[in-house]
Amino acid sequence: MPLSPDQLAEIDQHQQASAPTRRATVPALEAMLYRATPVLDHGFVRVIDYMGDDAAIVQAARVSYGKGTRKVSEDAGLIRYLMRHRHSTPFEMCEIKFHVKLPIFVARQWIRHRMANVNEYSARYSILDREFYIPEPEHLAAQSSSNRQGRGDVLEGEAASAVLDLLRDDAARCHDHYALMLGDDEQEVAGGNPGQRGYGLARELARMNLTLNTYTQWYWKSDLHNLLNFLSLRLDLHAQFEIRVYAEAMLDCVRAWVPTACAAFEDYRLGAFTLSSSMLGVVKRLLDGEPLEQKASGLSRREWDELMQALGRA
Amino acid sequence: MPLSPDQLAEIDQHQQASAPTRRATVPALEAMLYRATPVLDHGFVRVIDYMGDDAAIVQAARVSYGKGTRKVSEDAGLIRYLMRHRHSTPFEMCEIKFHVKLPIFVARQWIRHRMANVNEYSARYSILDREFYIPEPEHLAAQSSSNRQGRGDVLEGEAASAVLDLLRDDAARCHDHYALMLGDDEQEVAGGNPGQRGYGLARELARMNLTLNTYTQWYWKSDLHNLLNFLSLRLDLHAQFEIRVYAEAMLDCVRAWVPTACAAFEDYRLGAFTLSSSMLGVVKRLLDGEPLEQKASGLSRREWDELMQALGRA
Amino acid sequence: MPLSPDQLAEIDQHQQASAPTRRATVPALEAMLYRATPVLDHGFVRVIDYMGDDAAIVQAARVSYGKGTRKVSEDAGLIRYLMRHRHSTPFEMCEIKFHVKLPIFVARQWIRHRMANVNEYSARYSILDREFYIPEPEHLAAQSSSNRQGRGDVLEGEAASAVLDLLRDDAARCHDHYALMLGDDEQEVAGGNPGQRGYGLARELARMNLTLNTYTQWYWKSDLHNLLNFLSLRLDLHAQFEIRVYAEAMLDCVRAWVPTACAAFEDYRLGAFTLSSSMLGVVKRLLDGEPLEQKASGLSRREWDELMQALGRA
Amino acid sequence: MPLSPDQLAEIDQHQQASAPTRRATVPALEAMLYRATPVLDHGFVRVIDYMGDDAAIVQAARVSYGKGTRKVSEDAGLIRYLMRHRHSTPFEMCEIKFHVKLPIFVARQWIRHRMANVNEYSARYSILDREFYIPEPEHLAAQSSSNRQGRGDVLEGEAASAVLDLLRDDAARCHDHYALMLGDDEQEVAGGNPGQRGYGLARELARMNLTLNTYTQWYWKSDLHNLLNFLSLRLDLHAQFEIRVYAEAMLDCVRAWVPTACAAFEDYRLGAFTLSSSMLGVVKRLLDGEPLEQKASGLSRREWDELMQALGRA
Repeated sequence: MPLSPDQLAEIDQHQQASAPTRRATVPALEAMLYRATPVLDHGFVRVIDYMGDDAAIVQAARVSYGKGTRKVSEDAGLIRYLMRHRHSTPFEMCEIKFHVKLPIFVARQWIRHRMANVNEYSARYSILDREFYIPEPEHLAAQSSSNRQGRGDVLEGEAASAVLDLLRDDAARCHDHYALMLGDDEQEVAGGNPGQRGYGLARELARMNLTLNTYTQWYWKSDLHNLLNFLSLRLDLHAQFEIRVYAEAMLDCVRAWVPTACAAFEDYRLGAFTLSSSMLGVVKRLLDGEPLEQKASGLSRREWDELMQALGRA
Repeated sequence: MPLSPDQLAEIDQHQQASAPTRRATVPALEAMLYRATPVLDHGFVRVIDYMGDDAAIVQAARVSYGKGTRKVSEDAGLIRYLMRHRHSTPFEMCEIKFHVKLPIFVARQWIRHRMANVNEYSARYSILDREFYIPEPEHLAAQSSSNRQGRGDVLEGEAASAVLDLLRDDAARCHDHYALMLGDDEQEVAGGNPGQRGYGLARELARMNLTLNTYTQWYWKSDLHNLLNFLSLRLDLHAQFEIRVYAEAMLDCVRAWVPTACAAFEDYRLGAFTLSSSMLGVVKRLLDGEPLEQKASGLSRREWDELMQALGRA
Repeated sequence: MPLSPDQLAEIDQHQQASAPTRRATVPALEAMLYRATPVLDHGFVRVIDYMGDDAAIVQAARVSYGKGTRKVSEDAGLIRYLMRHRHSTPFEMCEIKFHVKLPIFVARQWIRHRMANVNEYSARYSILDREFYIPEPEHLAAQSSSNRQGRGDVLEGEAASAVLDLLRDDAARCHDHYALMLGDDEQEVAGGNPGQRGYGLARELARMNLTLNTYTQWYWKSDLHNLLNFLSLRLDLHAQFEIRVYAEAMLDCVRAWVPTACAAFEDYRLGAFTLSSSMLGVVKRLLDGEPLEQKASGLSRREWDELMQALGRA
Repeated sequence: MPLSPDQLAEIDQHQQASAPTRRATVPALEAMLYRATPVLDHGFVRVIDYMGDDAAIVQAARVSYGKGTRKVSEDAGLIRYLMRHRHSTPFEMCEIKFHVKLPIFVARQWIRHRMANVNEYSARYSILDREFYIPEPEHLAAQSSSNRQGRGDVLEGEAASAVLDLLRDDAARCHDHYALMLGDDEQEVAGGNPGQRGYGLARELARMNLTLNTYTQWYWKSDLHNLLNFLSLRLDLHAQFEIRVYAEAMLDCVRAWVPTACAAFEDYRLGAFTLSSSMLGVVKRLLDGEPLEQKASGLSRREWDELMQALGRA
């Protein structure tokens, strides 16, 4: 588990406090609040705060004076309508804030989603812990031979253990030297050779010696619409495994928070498939009973395969 | 007061509900929640929801596991430091949602602030009420002779009453015709001539007949950093009076919500004055006791006047 | 035509100037540069500037040192791949700037697209011309009976001419009074009664008397990715006719500018149809030859109709 | 120099092409186009494309039909006015695109500026070169004792060479192992031990072994307003040296591109000092001849020092 006893105690204390509020409140998410869901070997995701609920989407769409909600079925129908027709602004009326601990190379992908608020732990100001991501053996994949940015088979045997040793040793050595460069020149360096003193290098410089699997952490806040965009891209099968697991942990939070909106998202976005104009033509011909092959379809081989797979005819 | 009895009842009902939460809670803002602060003749501002408090700024800046706060004085010192050095991201960790009723010409200025979430009442879908902004006599100002986008003296006597009559009559007639164009062709039009039937025009077309002082309303949500930018621009003396009064009502909400951040904002932003490089040179020479006039200062007449006014020597 | 002889002369002069550049250049768009395409009765769209071309998308995707392009077919394949897999950042590397003249109620819809840069003609500072949008008779539609934000049949006969008279008269009267309120109190008001003098009201106040079909204008700049989002939403059949015609004029510019990206957009976005997870299930069952009716499909009536229409089986 | 002969040839070829355009053109920036300005040991900045010039700012502010410019002095006055009064939208009408090569730890700071378009070289898809940032000895600074995120004195002698050795060795070893993990298992690894074969690890995994001083590169595009915000923050004395040098290289490009706007920026932003409300009170008292000390000033020690330094009385 990636948290120290002190940190767990801080979280516990935070979680036990309770106060009355007149705001929209979601008991299922309150129950998860502050608790860390472990992700990868040292990472986590935890919800720090939230604003709004399913009803707040309806309330904003209706620009209403009170709660704005009517019968549950009417509200769900409206939410589904909004999702289907890409009326995104009512979903922007809900907001959620996460505390995330993640490897730096994952953080570099994640930060490309610009429509969010971020406070990252500063390695100019503070010292990063000695924690690195080392993949589980079953995730140690070879380069895909067909997809230049994908994974192929799992590495096994000596190759696997050689790679894991390299990752572990290099990360550890780089962090040891980071600590040594940072160390005070009047004290022995913890973990250094006996009597070894540090060099007192500026933190903003020493950090450049760390490897990209070192863990960092941040507060990350987003509205629901942009969070769903993030999830839609990062839950995709083409997304790298190491970011997809964060997206999965966050999807669980969304499901507890706004169950109706989440169900609409899963139907209209996650499980959806977009037919291009050409694909639509192919589907029509297939429905008319035409025996159609890729060559005559007008689709490229890759598009044909994607379509057949979506239609369960691969 | 711009609210109907039904709306007031809806708000009351909304305000009486209370539930326990583990989230950061601000009693002073809870007390204001949902209640409408009147602005202009038919407008209002009311807080619908919020996320975070002063401590949440500190917590995010420290990327902490628990509340992250220390002594009150340390927290205030950190917030002031962040404000002074333009570290804006921790302020983005607080979020607030308003329901605002405002004239369309004010909405058109307001919407230029892009870093916010908005759901406006749709006149394609619904019918706008018969409510227009008519200035109080003391705000009926003549065009400024010195500032092409400013106001001069207040209009008085016949000119004032003629202008008010024009504004009132044109808005009313345009709305009556709007209702007439919209009206069902099988029913008498409410407020029309006896026996007059409507034309059944599409709402999305009929609305084009309304004047720009017609009231609209929206849900508007922003993080604290962008809200402070909005307030800083719209509380400025150059801002139009009709939007400044909304900014003033919102500043009161911010003061109740995040008193420490608000005080820092008032010191470092609202009451601040930026010396350009040239102005800085002038101040240095004045402090050295040099008897300096505009002509020798290198500043333009306008910049000299702005500087002297800021220094209380105008 | 919505341009004065002076304006046409200015545009001509601007268009005749030419200079050598080392930047990416698109002759087909150069030919359109600065010229106004008329839209509605007094509006227009004209391209003022652009950055990049189809090759710039490829160049950015490859982060290349030179032009980055290879064979035409490879480049087109890459652009199609990027469009299909929602890799949006390379499309953000092209930028275009328009000058648009449009009715205020259209501008209010348009401005909701936040990811763009806008400079609007300021009615606080300047005086708006006496130009209003009056629909052509064939666009004067009744409210739809099935769709609360849509249009039904065209109004005809007396109803149509009554509505057009109301729109025309109210807009004209409101503008006349606007001019009267603004007018100098020492001069006769042009178009007023003989001897009538103006009231000298501040511009920022007088403008509130204008109707929402008054024309405004702005410079609007966007990257290609966000422009395609705008077009995809505003070319939709649910978009209001009066903004769709602007989107159509802009699509013509995009086609001249980046023909390959535009073709991919038309295939994968404009002509596409997204199957929800439930719809996908229905299509599979239909392909398996199952005789399926709406009731047994699990789809709502509305979704079933949308699907059947997309599949050409409505 | 950080470019290979092939890359230099590609750039040369790109730079020699020229075509006529009707767009705004800036000869001084054309002369710099595509050429790489070296930054740090292996990095560079080069301008790839631009849109607009000083006149385009004026043209947008006036929403004009032609060039919109008048006398040079009037245009400069307007640009200075816009800059002084924070009218940012006209500056958003100019756009520039850079190709930048930079260490990953610098890229991580840079990317926090969200209002820009970015395409980064993908290490999921491609292989990063064996190039790392190693500071020049004169930039190898100790941690500041007074400022937790700043630099103090330069390291010297053995400490300096020990640190440089660590940085160099760790980066090199990590990259060698990266190459080894990536290497094909049927070929000898270039630079490996004789006969050593690679492990064929997926690129998206192998990259996690690289250190944060490894160079990456990206296309980065921004409008002028947001670029000036970036420069204002990154040219600040509190910015880390390794990003400041990029900002300086970019400021040179801005000066060639929009000299009038750049001069206004340097006067009103770069060389400016913002007096808080309390500081303004202090300056007034000093101008009144009051002999004032920090303790009686109401300012904190740190704010007093900042003020005295700005006034040249430190």
